[in-house]
Amino acid sequence: MRALLQVSVLVMVLVILGTVTVSAQNGAAEAIKAVNQLFQEYVAEGNADALTMLFTEDGMSMQPNADPRVGHEAIKEAHAEMFATGVGALRLTTDELEVFGDTAHEVGRFVTETADGDHIDHGKYVVIWKRIEGEWKLHRDIFNSNMAAQ
Amino acid sequence: MRALLQVSVLVMVLVILGTVTVSAQNGAAEAIKAVNQLFQEYVAEGNADALTMLFTEDGMSMQPNADPRVGHEAIKEAHAEMFATGVGALRLTTDELEVFGDTAHEVGRFVTETADGDHIDHGKYVVIWKRIEGEWKLHRDIFNSNMAAQ
Repeated sequence: MRALLQVSVLVMVLVILGTVTVSAQNGAAEAIKAVNQLFQEYVAEGNADALTMLFTEDGMSMQPNADPRVGHEAIKEAHAEMFATGVGALRLTTDELEVFGDTAHEVGRFVTETADGDHIDHGKYVVIWKRIEGEWKLHRDIFNSNMAAQ
Repeated sequence: MRALLQVSVLVMVLVILGTVTVSAQNGAAEAIKAVNQLFQEYVAEGNADALTMLFTEDGMSMQPNADPRVGHEAIKEAHAEMFATGVGALRLTTDELEVFGDTAHEVGRFVTETADGDHIDHGKYVVIWKRIEGEWKLHRDIFNSNMAAQ
């Protein structure tokens, strides 16, 4: 009887843990999708300040042909430079997203365009996300181009 | 009494789960370090075949200025091309490694050199690792250079 009770409690605990995990993952995927939507909107607005706040405080932006930029000030500068090169639109496509508690990783593709819709660049990216005080933020962001080096 | 028993079983389950998790993470970090060591050795040998086998079968190598290479054949070709450019040595430095069951992500820095030790390139990378049948393999591999575009 005691053994049966133990097994029942164990099964119950595992079912609860499993349900919480699946539910958290679904919520995370939606939340991350929403942040990516904001990311694209802020690029269209040329708003480096707002973009920066989508990263963790110790976030790292790993752009090609530049040292990694760590922290909000450096990340803001990196994105201001991106706008200075004429990027006026960004399209993100998430191909893979896996969530592990307060961490997630995403593999995707990007396209950048001028504000007039002229193609600038396209390539692939990986983002490691962290949930900080309930909010999903970009923590590590790396990308590179599919286009031949200029 | 029944409540006490339930709590005891719950605590026991959580302690066991916690212990298994920590132990698995330690083992994973060592195993991944060993694979990175092999990766560097195979680059020094110019052995694209052996390098390729360090990736999952549906692995993806995301090199700068090229479409993503998916699967062993394409990954082998990508690394053969890397050797053709004169890369004879690779040094990897892991800065961050987080393990979640059979998945892990790593953030690090790389340096490439000729066989004679002349500097070619240096930059940063992110690898998403998967444990397949007990073996840690590179699943998603993306990097870019810190050096100004040529």
